[in-house]
Amino acid sequence: MYDIAIIGGGPAGVSAAINAKLLNKNFIWLGGVSVSKKVVLAEKIKNYPGLPDISGENFGTALKAHTESMGIELTEKVVTGIYDTGGKYTLLAGDSEYEAKTVILCIGAVNEKPIEGENEFIGRGVSYCATCDGFAYKGKTIGVLCADKRFEHEVEYLCSLAEKVYVMPMYKNCGVKAENCEIILKKPHKISGRLRVESIAFDAGEIKADGIFILRNAVAADTLLHGLKTEKGHIISDKLCATNISGVFAAGDCTGRPYQYIKAAGEGNVAVHSAIDYLAKL
Amino acid sequence: MYDIAIIGGGPAGVSAAINAKLLNKNFIWLGGVSVSKKVVLAEKIKNYPGLPDISGENFGTALKAHTESMGIELTEKVVTGIYDTGGKYTLLAGDSEYEAKTVILCIGAVNEKPIEGENEFIGRGVSYCATCDGFAYKGKTIGVLCADKRFEHEVEYLCSLAEKVYVMPMYKNCGVKAENCEIILKKPHKISGRLRVESIAFDAGEIKADGIFILRNAVAADTLLHGLKTEKGHIISDKLCATNISGVFAAGDCTGRPYQYIKAAGEGNVAVHSAIDYLAKL
Repeated sequence: MYDIAIIGGGPAGVSAAINAKLLNKNFIWLGGVSVSKKVVLAEKIKNYPGLPDISGENFGTALKAHTESMGIELTEKVVTGIYDTGGKYTLLAGDSEYEAKTVILCIGAVNEKPIEGENEFIGRGVSYCATCDGFAYKGKTIGVLCADKRFEHEVEYLCSLAEKVYVMPMYKNCGVKAENCEIILKKPHKISGRLRVESIAFDAGEIKADGIFILRNAVAADTLLHGLKTEKGHIISDKLCATNISGVFAAGDCTGRPYQYIKAAGEGNVAVHSAIDYLAKL
Repeated sequence: MYDIAIIGGGPAGVSAAINAKLLNKNFIWLGGVSVSKKVVLAEKIKNYPGLPDISGENFGTALKAHTESMGIELTEKVVTGIYDTGGKYTLLAGDSEYEAKTVILCIGAVNEKPIEGENEFIGRGVSYCATCDGFAYKGKTIGVLCADKRFEHEVEYLCSLAEKVYVMPMYKNCGVKAENCEIILKKPHKISGRLRVESIAFDAGEIKADGIFILRNAVAADTLLHGLKTEKGHIISDKLCATNISGVFAAGDCTGRPYQYIKAAGEGNVAVHSAIDYLAKL
């Protein structure tokens, strides 16, 4: 069991990981996207004190070099669920499970709103993890919302199991090639059914489906951890990065505006200190 | 009148100044010590993400280079009082006055407790500013607590006015040379009097004095701004850096632990965004 699980590969996660390492804690650092991929799209960053006028690419490289110099590695997995399992937290990430005494959420701002019906049908046809739940759809018909090209291998895995797969890529040039796959260039706007998912609706028309896999870079905070208080999509946290759930801390864009690298890095530091204070009291 | 007055030359102040400049605000940046002097004593800094294993000296240089590259200059003055003057704040610094709509306090952690009687006799014999109040002690007897060698010119100025000056340097090798100056190598522990200061007591013995000048690098937050809520010496602020006084924000070590450069820099950024939100509502 880890002392601390840090979730998120952006600047808040980097800062948390650096401090957890320096303070000699037993921790795991999980994230779907490493920082170098995440900040690379930023143009010039002018307000990260000490690194004037740095490009997103160079900033990502600098952060990566920092963690590497300390022997810190990101475990590149998307965490799809966090469960309070009695005095500890169990994290699901792909087909792996991790246990930790404290959790630091550095999961970024989730810009997308959930699809209508998404939260309602979680566990009843809505899934965030192909490797976790794919097998249950052997021989069935499913939809897959694929937010990023790098999830295509998961889509292909689902194609190898399901009879029919409707893929809804949120980017251009989807490369999934499977005979039983049909590409729909529309965004789903509603998930419906009685007890379980039965159909997925678009602006015009709908498809019948036994389930939908939603493969996004980030899962909304309160979907990830049931009972976590949020407001307008942001985790409610205090100045010491504590959330409403004891042992769970939050840092970076997921805690609200301003969306700024230096603010995220600062909170990552604070969150680790708060987690350590919490561990000391256990 | 400025939109924003930023007080403090450390990493929180640097970050605030960079953001105020980028966001095109009319601001003044005041501080007794520039960042290059302040962080220079730090040994290796290992947890400022993006600048691995940097010395305090190089970190200070990097911050200074950042502000200089943006044409930002610190006005090197110690702010000794902030007054709400009706919809604006008036700041006293040496013999200058500045007016601003908002104030961002980045004044660092004040480690020293006030001397017994210090707060009680402010304006009645206790002063923080030689150039402001020195003239009132022409021909009188005063004590001067001098916390830093760089205030010695102020001590000498006081010696040119007062009849007798007891200097209490808080460092070795005090260089003040004046015929009417007597050096006391003890720390005062109590300031007493009836209506005004009359004496200064040490562990053993006391001196008669008409006043005492306390020349420190930082003035305690609630001494600086009357009515500002503090707890154990730290300014009470929320995650958006707001204090209990509207239009007054706080960032960095003065808001509490952890005392970390990256936390300070993050808060400096947040405080400017909050000040701008506040200005927009005026």
